[in-house]
Order: sequence, then structure tokens, then C-alpha cells
Amino acid sequence: MNRRRRVYEGKAKILYEGPEPGTLVQHFKDDTTVLHPKKSEVIDGKGVLNNRISEYIFTQLNRMGIPTHFIRRLNMREQLIKEVEIIPLQVVVRNIAAGSLAKRLGIEEGTVLPRSIIEFYYKNDELDDPMVSEEHITAFGWAAPQEIDDIMALAIRINDFLSGLFLGVGIQLVDFKIECGRLYEGEMMRIVLADEFTPDSARLWDSQTAEKMDKDRFRRDMGGLIEAYQEVARRLGIMNENDQTRPSGPVLVK
Amino acid sequence: MNRRRRVYEGKAKILYEGPEPGTLVQHFKDDTTVLHPKKSEVIDGKGVLNNRISEYIFTQLNRMGIPTHFIRRLNMREQLIKEVEIIPLQVVVRNIAAGSLAKRLGIEEGTVLPRSIIEFYYKNDELDDPMVSEEHITAFGWAAPQEIDDIMALAIRINDFLSGLFLGVGIQLVDFKIECGRLYEGEMMRIVLADEFTPDSARLWDSQTAEKMDKDRFRRDMGGLIEAYQEVARRLGIMNENDQTRPSGPVLVK
Ligand SMILES: Nc1ncnc2c1ncn2[C@@H]1O[C@H](COP(=O)(O)OP(=O)(O)O)[C@@H](O)[C@H]1O
Ligand SMILES: Nc1ncnc2c1ncn2[C@@H]1O[C@H](COP(=O)(O)OP(=O)(O)O)[C@@H](O)[C@H]1O
Ligand SMILES: [Mg+2]
Ligand SMILES: [Mg+2]
Repeated sequence: MNRRRRVYEGKAKILYEGPEPGTLVQHFKDDTTVLHPKKSEVIDGKGVLNNRISEYIFTQLNRMGIPTHFIRRLNMREQLIKEVEIIPLQVVVRNIAAGSLAKRLGIEEGTVLPRSIIEFYYKNDELDDPMVSEEHITAFGWAAPQEIDDIMALAIRINDFLSGLFLGVGIQLVDFKIECGRLYEGEMMRIVLADEFTPDSARLWDSQTAEKMDKDRFRRDMGGLIEAYQEVARRLGIMNENDQTRPSGPVLVK
Repeated sequence: MNRRRRVYEGKAKILYEGPEPGTLVQHFKDDTTVLHPKKSEVIDGKGVLNNRISEYIFTQLNRMGIPTHFIRRLNMREQLIKEVEIIPLQVVVRNIAAGSLAKRLGIEEGTVLPRSIIEFYYKNDELDDPMVSEEHITAFGWAAPQEIDDIMALAIRINDFLSGLFLGVGIQLVDFKIECGRLYEGEMMRIVLADEFTPDSARLWDSQTAEKMDKDRFRRDMGGLIEAYQEVARRLGIMNENDQTRPSGPVLVK
């Protein structure tokens, strides 16, 4: 199994060469890293949960005709994806003020924004992912104007659909980060959603209690991260009996 | 109360003059009418449920920045809305083949469509709401090309958000009909969602059992319409204790 070529190892995932050209295997690790404040920890089982949650979300987006890199889940920690040319931007969609936006603009966390706001950050760990505008993006050639339009349209569709989905399961989609890529199919190129959608990359608050169900639990040393991710999976209806961490009673051996 | 001027009485709703210029009061009746096969019945309590369901959906759409005519609910059967110039089109969005599309194109009901399909019908009871294309719409001046684009963009956003919302509560959004209108605000005109979003105007199937939770129960003489609409409201989280048809036990008199 480990004779596969490792293409890239990032903070939370590993990419391996896929079984066919143009495919990759995306492996979700338990590593949990944040840049502000800089810290990292291995949180047992997080990768398994993120693999399942991202599978579910990307499957539903594909069904809605919102294009993604996702092909299928392979096992507990891995999924088969289409290789894309990653656009080096972190695209953030915000519905409610939180995190860096709340701090930078002096808006109280939890304030509903006048409308959804899309932000771009240049994806570069050494530079701490600096915020950039369309001017920087086109001047440095990271994406063409038409591609920025496509990315924004994609981001709005994703936000519309997922805001509805999470509302339905009693969760507020506060904000999220996505990465997009260029998918080449013959002569054609389209912008598709790549990377992941997980509680690592989104802020999810319980609708009733505003309890945090995302990586802010780690960022702010609140504990209970795995339980929160499990609850997100449970509400989305993607936890089945096999996923219980402990059997609730005697198990029949067949 | 009934000194208000009645502006229009339709098959399922009555419009009254509103308290301020540019507003109307939309009253939901219990009348349940279908054109194919032509029949009508009064179903006790349907108007109350539709008023609540439409209130909830339009409120959430407004929050998403998807513009609607809805201002606020006034009472059990009535809501305050902005008066618009109704575009005489029924705009149908379909995700899964059902009803007339299934019959006309010979596709089995329940077939997932290759992609969401938007259809236009000319709103005219005497003519049985005939299907029309963009050619007819622009030739007869019902809407300008730019307005059709705006309507389609609105329809896609509504479909994205509501597909997510209903998925989250275990319901498939099979298809739905909307009406749009021109809202004049000073010099500005925008296309907004008008009329209603209810189980009268949408096909809603239980995700697990595919049971119908919409007006098809009446159209196909299946019974249980009110119970189905109540279940839709309950899943959306908009039924509170006051809405129970019967108290479940002794009630404390305060
Ligand atoms: N479909 C794809 N094709 C190519 N690269 C991808 C694809 N999806 C995600 N990636 C990249 O794989 C990496 C995932 O690993 P991750 O641990 O998140 O890395 P990082 O620490 O750079 O964020 C990211 O750099 C992401 O841009
Ligand atoms: N905001 C609005 N302003 C003006 N007219 C509206 C608005 N919303 C809905 N309408 C119209 O009000 C009527 C609602 O009553 P309904 O019983 O549904 O009528 P119909 O039998 O014509 O479908 C519809 O004709 C609809 O086009
Ligand atoms: Mg990453
Ligand atoms: Mg009507």
C-alpha cells in the first residue's frame, strides 16, 4: 500500500498518486494546526471524521451541479479526487462576523453581516496567508479576471446550498474557507471546488446555543473537538452504527 | 377589519390593500384547487400552515440576501408583503422528474435530471398556463431578456438554498413553482420573489421513504394532506406548542 508515490504532505492531509492519471488520493491526518496562535496537536480520529464530512458535502455539491474534485471515498481516511491545478488562494465566505474579520474591522463576533462577504488570501504559509484583493490576484497572475468571477459564482452557490443544509440541521454556517482549482478535460478547463469542506475549514455554531462545533475549539483551547465534529456528522445523518467509538452493548460475533 | 379593500381574490389567496402605500396583505385560504384534473376542495387548516411555511422560507431567503416581497406575518392566515408588478410567468425549477415533465417527456417519475431545469409557463387560468419559451416571453413583452436572466439567477439561488435546507430536514426538493415581480424603489427596479413557497407550490418527498408531503396528495386523492403539511412545518422547526391541534395531556390553567 505504501509503495504509492507521495505527491505532497501538508498540515492536515497527504496527497498520493492516484490509480489513474489525473487522479490523486487525499489522505486525512489527525494533525490539527493553527497559525494564530501557532500550535499543532494530533487529535485522535479527526482525520476519519473530516474524510466522512467532506465526502458527504462534496457528494451533495456534485449532485447540485456544483463541480468539485471529489470522485469517491476509498476508506476511513482516504478519498479519490481529480487532480487539479490549485489556484493559490484561500477563498473565505463570511455570513456572520467572527475571527479575523471581527478583530480587524472591530465588529463584535456574532454580528450578522449586511450581506455575505467574499475574501481572498494568498495561500502561503511563510507569509501567513496575507489578505489580497482582485488587483493583487490579477497583477501577479494567480488568476485571470474571468476566473475570479467563476470562483465568486462558485463560492456563492456553495454558500447558498450549505447555509440551507446547515440551517436544516440546526447549525449556523458562520464562515468557511475553500480552495479552487483548474480542471482540464480535453480542450476544456473549468474551475472546480478542491481540497476539503470540514469543521477544520468552517465556523459552525449551534443554532440554539451558539456553541462552537469547529476548529475554534482547538484554536481557543476549549476542548471537546472530536465530540463536536461527531455531532456535526451525526446531524448531517452520516454517522452509522459502525462509526460509534464504542459499541453500546454486547456485539454479536458472526 | 373587513373594511379593508379587497384587491384580488385568487384560487388560494386573497390580497387586501395594505396599511401603507406599496404594501398588501396576503391572506391564505383553505381552498385547494388543481387544474389537472380540475377539482377544488376546502381543506381545514391548510391556509394557516401555508402562511407559516411561506413566512419561514421567505424570512430565510431574505436573510440570505435573496430578495422577496415578504415583510412580516400579521396573524394566523395573513402576512404583510410589498406590492410588486407581477411578471405573468410561473417559473418552475425541477431537480427530479415528476408530474407534467415526466409525462410529457416520457421520463419515469423519480428520475434524477441530468441537471436542474427551469421552465416558464404563461400565467393564465383560461389557457391552462401553457408552457412558453424565452422567445414567447420577449416577443409578447412579458419580460425583457435581462429580466429573464435575473429571474433565472434568482431561481437558481432559491433552488440551491432550499435544496440544502430540505436535505437537512430529510426532504427531497423535487420541483417548485415561483412567481416573480418588479419591485420599484425610487428610481430603482429589482426583480424579487413574490407569491408563496408552500407544499401547494412544490413537490416535497421524504428522503427515506419518498412519501409525498405536498399537494400531490390532493391531486392524486391520497388523503393525509394536512398531516403531511404539518410534518413539513415540524421538520423545519416552525411548529411550536401553540400549533398542536390537540394538547397531548391535561393543560394547566394559569
Ligand atoms: N484536487 C486537488 N489537486 C491538487 N492539489 C489539491 C487538490 N485538492 C487539494 N489540493 C492541495 O492539497 C493540499 C492538501 O493538504 P493540506 O494539509 O490541506 O495542505 P496545506 O497545509 O497546504 O493547507 C493543499 O495544499 C491543497 O491545495
Ligand atoms: N407581492 C405581490 N404583489 C402583487 N401581487 C402579488 C404579490 N404576490 C402574489 N401576488 C399575486 O397574488 C395572487 C395570489 O393569489 P392566488 O390565489 O395564488 O392567485 P392565482 O389563483 O392567480 O394563482 C396571484 O395572482 C399572485 O400573482
Ligand atoms: Mg489545507
Ligand atoms: Mg397562485
